[in-house]
Amino acid sequence: MQIFYAPNINGNTYTLPEEESKHCIRVLRLNTGDELTLIDGKGNLFTATIATPNPKRCEVIVTDVKTEYGKRNFYLHIAIAPTKNIERLEWFLEKATEIGIDEITPILCERSERKVVNNERLEKIIVSAVKQSIKAYVPQLNPMVPLKQLLAHDTEGQKFIAHCNSWELPLLKNNANPNSRVTLLIGPEGDFTPNEVDLSITRGYQEISLGSSRLRTETAGLVACHTINIMNE
Amino acid sequence: MQIFYAPNINGNTYTLPEEESKHCIRVLRLNTGDELTLIDGKGNLFTATIATPNPKRCEVIVTDVKTEYGKRNFYLHIAIAPTKNIERLEWFLEKATEIGIDEITPILCERSERKVVNNERLEKIIVSAVKQSIKAYVPQLNPMVPLKQLLAHDTEGQKFIAHCNSWELPLLKNNANPNSRVTLLIGPEGDFTPNEVDLSITRGYQEISLGSSRLRTETAGLVACHTINIMNE
Repeated sequence: MQIFYAPNINGNTYTLPEEESKHCIRVLRLNTGDELTLIDGKGNLFTATIATPNPKRCEVIVTDVKTEYGKRNFYLHIAIAPTKNIERLEWFLEKATEIGIDEITPILCERSERKVVNNERLEKIIVSAVKQSIKAYVPQLNPMVPLKQLLAHDTEGQKFIAHCNSWELPLLKNNANPNSRVTLLIGPEGDFTPNEVDLSITRGYQEISLGSSRLRTETAGLVACHTINIMNE
Repeated sequence: MQIFYAPNINGNTYTLPEEESKHCIRVLRLNTGDELTLIDGKGNLFTATIATPNPKRCEVIVTDVKTEYGKRNFYLHIAIAPTKNIERLEWFLEKATEIGIDEITPILCERSERKVVNNERLEKIIVSAVKQSIKAYVPQLNPMVPLKQLLAHDTEGQKFIAHCNSWELPLLKNNANPNSRVTLLIGPEGDFTPNEVDLSITRGYQEISLGSSRLRTETAGLVACHTINIMNE
């Protein structure tokens, strides 16, 4: 199934952007009356047929809408320090999107080696993972913020910080509740500093462990993501 | 902590291979009496001190041995069809090693687009992930075999085949037993054929689902690996 991302779709007709029109008509060789699937990234999955097979402005007519397609019974927000090697963060974004995540915030920590990210590029990776895994919701990617700024916000639901400064921490799987809203912090290579952990605790974050293995930043993010998903299955 | 892989270590003294001797003496600038850690990949974690800081043949003396270091209470064997883009399989190997896996067999399936892999290269990726995550056991990587050949073997423990030909399959997490030996099959892009699924069933494999998300081959492999790990925590 070929999925097209139409974030600004509105009403029963839609004109694909030039690039996607070209892909649809020239590459896939679709023609008048052929069916395709669109998502708006907000939970709507549209079935549409091609009305005008224009390779620059392909017009389609929506014939069916599924709302809240694949809606989950939980909300997962992972705030993660971007890795020095950006490919590792990109990999996390692709896999977390496939498995299931709602919101991602890149955070700047005391030990962060990477201090900037290109959100436009990261957005593209998320959208392509959404299309590949046939999801109707596109995870929200927030601008990068310093950890302290994120902690200053009041956040609903359960709040966790995963770190390795202690081996005596309780497991995430034993402390997260199903059907709930979860915010989880993953630190950079070198981990959070004790100061950052203490500050998180004062802001209501609970320290947790992701298991006995020593994991890279992006692996920890994915393990946390799958842990929350599996307990909501 | 710097870990050196010494698969053929035997006795209380060991001479590092030329490349690792150079890394140890020229790069890390270690010298006589300095301490380092070695693993044999079979569960032994050695503490050793440098006796002869030769940059080509660095000799060390073992001062302490931890046996069965990080030994797990379960055995996980994943047989997976290598991905068309080999980087995706390599990524699976790195992450599965970090999270915890004992044996991996690349399998050739009816819909496999990739029919050969370079096990020497894959071994290196596994060993570097073992060192990075400080493990004393190196997962066993078997030569690539046709699925039918793998199925012809009698295998102890629980046997599962993950596929998407049906949405009504039971979840792996509800069917795998903790503290047990598990063999799990992951198909290629395009999934197993119905014939392959039927053959697996006749060989005692149970069909399971990894959840409601449509996952890529390498993501399915990792989700299966983490599912077995998390239920043994």
